[in-house]
Amino acid sequence: MKQIYSTIRNLFLFSALIIGGNEMRSQNLEKPNFVIIFADDMGYGDLSSYGHPTIKTPNLDKMAMEGQKWTNFYVGSSVCTPSRAAIMTGRLPVRNGMTSKEHRVLQPWSTNGLPQSEITIAEQLKKGGYGTAAFGKWHLGDKEQYLPVNNGFDYWYGVPYSNDMDITLEMNEPQDYWNFWKSEERKEISSFNIPLMRNTEVIERPADQHTITKRYTNEAIEYIKENKDNPFFVYLAYNLPHVPLFASEEFEGTSKRGLYGDVVEEIDHNVGRVMEALKEQGIAENTIVVFTSDNGPWLVMDEEGGSAGLLRDGKGSTWEGGMREPGIFWSPGNLKPGIVTEIGSTMDLFTTFSKLAGVELPEDRVIDGQDLSDALFEGKESPRKSMFYYRGDELYAVRYGSYKAHFVTQSAYGSDREVHETPLLYNVDVDPSEKYEISEKHPEVIAEIRKVVDEHNKNMVKGPDMLKDWDYNPFEQ
Amino acid sequence: MKQIYSTIRNLFLFSALIIGGNEMRSQNLEKPNFVIIFADDMGYGDLSSYGHPTIKTPNLDKMAMEGQKWTNFYVGSSVCTPSRAAIMTGRLPVRNGMTSKEHRVLQPWSTNGLPQSEITIAEQLKKGGYGTAAFGKWHLGDKEQYLPVNNGFDYWYGVPYSNDMDITLEMNEPQDYWNFWKSEERKEISSFNIPLMRNTEVIERPADQHTITKRYTNEAIEYIKENKDNPFFVYLAYNLPHVPLFASEEFEGTSKRGLYGDVVEEIDHNVGRVMEALKEQGIAENTIVVFTSDNGPWLVMDEEGGSAGLLRDGKGSTWEGGMREPGIFWSPGNLKPGIVTEIGSTMDLFTTFSKLAGVELPEDRVIDGQDLSDALFEGKESPRKSMFYYRGDELYAVRYGSYKAHFVTQSAYGSDREVHETPLLYNVDVDPSEKYEISEKHPEVIAEIRKVVDEHNKNMVKGPDMLKDWDYNPFEQ
Repeated sequence: MKQIYSTIRNLFLFSALIIGGNEMRSQNLEKPNFVIIFADDMGYGDLSSYGHPTIKTPNLDKMAMEGQKWTNFYVGSSVCTPSRAAIMTGRLPVRNGMTSKEHRVLQPWSTNGLPQSEITIAEQLKKGGYGTAAFGKWHLGDKEQYLPVNNGFDYWYGVPYSNDMDITLEMNEPQDYWNFWKSEERKEISSFNIPLMRNTEVIERPADQHTITKRYTNEAIEYIKENKDNPFFVYLAYNLPHVPLFASEEFEGTSKRGLYGDVVEEIDHNVGRVMEALKEQGIAENTIVVFTSDNGPWLVMDEEGGSAGLLRDGKGSTWEGGMREPGIFWSPGNLKPGIVTEIGSTMDLFTTFSKLAGVELPEDRVIDGQDLSDALFEGKESPRKSMFYYRGDELYAVRYGSYKAHFVTQSAYGSDREVHETPLLYNVDVDPSEKYEISEKHPEVIAEIRKVVDEHNKNMVKGPDMLKDWDYNPFEQ
Repeated sequence: MKQIYSTIRNLFLFSALIIGGNEMRSQNLEKPNFVIIFADDMGYGDLSSYGHPTIKTPNLDKMAMEGQKWTNFYVGSSVCTPSRAAIMTGRLPVRNGMTSKEHRVLQPWSTNGLPQSEITIAEQLKKGGYGTAAFGKWHLGDKEQYLPVNNGFDYWYGVPYSNDMDITLEMNEPQDYWNFWKSEERKEISSFNIPLMRNTEVIERPADQHTITKRYTNEAIEYIKENKDNPFFVYLAYNLPHVPLFASEEFEGTSKRGLYGDVVEEIDHNVGRVMEALKEQGIAENTIVVFTSDNGPWLVMDEEGGSAGLLRDGKGSTWEGGMREPGIFWSPGNLKPGIVTEIGSTMDLFTTFSKLAGVELPEDRVIDGQDLSDALFEGKESPRKSMFYYRGDELYAVRYGSYKAHFVTQSAYGSDREVHETPLLYNVDVDPSEKYEISEKHPEVIAEIRKVVDEHNKNMVKGPDMLKDWDYNPFEQ
């Protein structure tokens, strides 16, 4: 009955604005609050509603059912740092140098981070009078000037990089990292020296990851309660189910999917707590919550990695499994509920939220994000018709409409890089698993995609590589 | 509001019986009607609610949401004829000879069919005073004595075997069959000479498959209306999305998944019509509807075959993709709604329905079906703890609890048969894609499964092979 109650309440609150059923949409939203919930290394197939047989995610499924479940929702890169740069800036990471051939993500010993010249979604929303807070993983630079509080967030409580970094073991060569993963040590929090920070201060080291999902959520809910009377933007970026996996006592051993499932179910539980808090504060109807993940599952981690469902490959790859993610939008009474098969991207949040907050988009740079409002509120077509899949600063593949052309292919961590003079072509709506190559049948599609690429390249100014510089090389100590 | 109305109505109708919320379960069901809806070659991953990105199945998703979505639901065999023998008899096909090494399914030129000594679920329910009707594909013998009306059904309207049989082309060798599939002819109904039958009479030949899904449904709904005052059993076995694919004008070209998607969406639409009809007749609350498919997707058919989602392999194989299917139960007000990760099987319908109909199980034979009532109505554990995966009359694999041991592996149509002295072991709850082999880690599980196999073999009397005899060999004309 809760849902009915909330609908009735909503009808009452906005009755003055209602003309017909379909009008009860974005018009009602006045400086809505935004909550982005971002999982880490969770795959397309890891939620019940996206097809996992044994991971139970009732809260996310409910979000998807009451809101919109996007099934063609992409991240800006198949690995962590560039994907986060994309969601933060609404721009392909290649534009701001947050992607690199040499080092795929930032390390604790990396020199740089997100360029100060970039405008984050938090900076953007602040222009509209929003309170802004980040909880969880950042991974866009751990030096002070790169931290969230110096990039548009009023507040931050979280970890500066991936939860598997800062291994306390001595490593002599990169291979030692993989050997470590086969050892028993990595089951101990003490094997990781990752700091938990508040704003610019380290408050716990190593961070206790058994309780970290719950603690991020507690802090986010506290923030929501305190800021309910003013528009706010919450970025809640769980650092799990990235390995090493840790669940709280309440969840460990409870899922049929093993520890990975426990961790996802704990995240689901905490997403439910955020939804409940928004309802309790009476602000759910003026809030948009988005749930997604930063990239596909880390398949080399075997059972400790996730699943891309029916999609091909995973994290690190420009096959669909690397960059297509669950995308769930929830905003009671405002969205046109259902499954959305249109194309969307995390970069579009920058643009969509800016519009809803009444903030002008920057005009001095290319913004890759598009405004999804009509798709969200009216059930109309998404303006996004294409998606560009970069690996480092090189364009590997392009989706245009239903078709995807691979100009270069390479498995997630393979040395099997292959350049295709005639790109491999797939219809990913018909064939989401990218199994049936159809370039011979559709030369006209390839010609069209080549034009899209030419157009794209015209406006492409690549940023200087921000990931390549290291303060020191831990493998050369 | 319809759902609320129906719940209120249900409360009213059964108010005398209600003690508390949880009691409003199977106790209310008095000789409930049963409707089995059986798709053909549809895979685990082909419904929205089971993870397909572009096939939209709102009616089945609603069934799953209001009812139970089983995610570990198995068929009795990875190919058509034996799978249908299993759902009809509640027995593994190896017991009644409906599976064979030589010919995997019945052909139009096969001599035999389901032995008369077998008790079908229709015969069983007739003992309880049920009206029984079959609509759609049979494939348990096309000679008169094997047809549905001579095996417990009062009425039948459908096709006797697969919709790709009776090719009008001359074939000289089996390879011609595959060549035919690459030709343009197979897009014409007239290339197939499959008869549409009513009881024992051919009424249309070739059957117009563009409208066949709709027509099966029309007939089923008509039957439901006429029989609403007495308990009935409807077996609605669509012969699609088995190739060749045909959709009606209304659906052709409407899905983003191509013709395969059109066909599945048309089935979904027609499932919705059955649900509506049951509601309109006021009997939904005393009916149990089950939706599943006969085996995994026929992967060699490329885009015209379906998807097993994250499961390995498909039709014809004893990997999960061959035998795990969507399993949706719907019975408004009676089931404990939710996702069920317990093990169930199509064979269990025989046993469960017999119990609910008040009909004793046969005692002169092994029945493999188990009673799922407690799982359905009370949300308790399923009594089924194991599943036996046969190929022909040979046991290839066994699931016991979360674990599955492969004693023999072979891809769907491969000649890569391999016998494993130490079986390959997977935890299919943790690893539904059967990627991470763990036999070395768990010898104790293998020992336990060997005991389960020994116990199973003790009661195993294999029936004589009913599929091997052909009236003639079309390849030797």
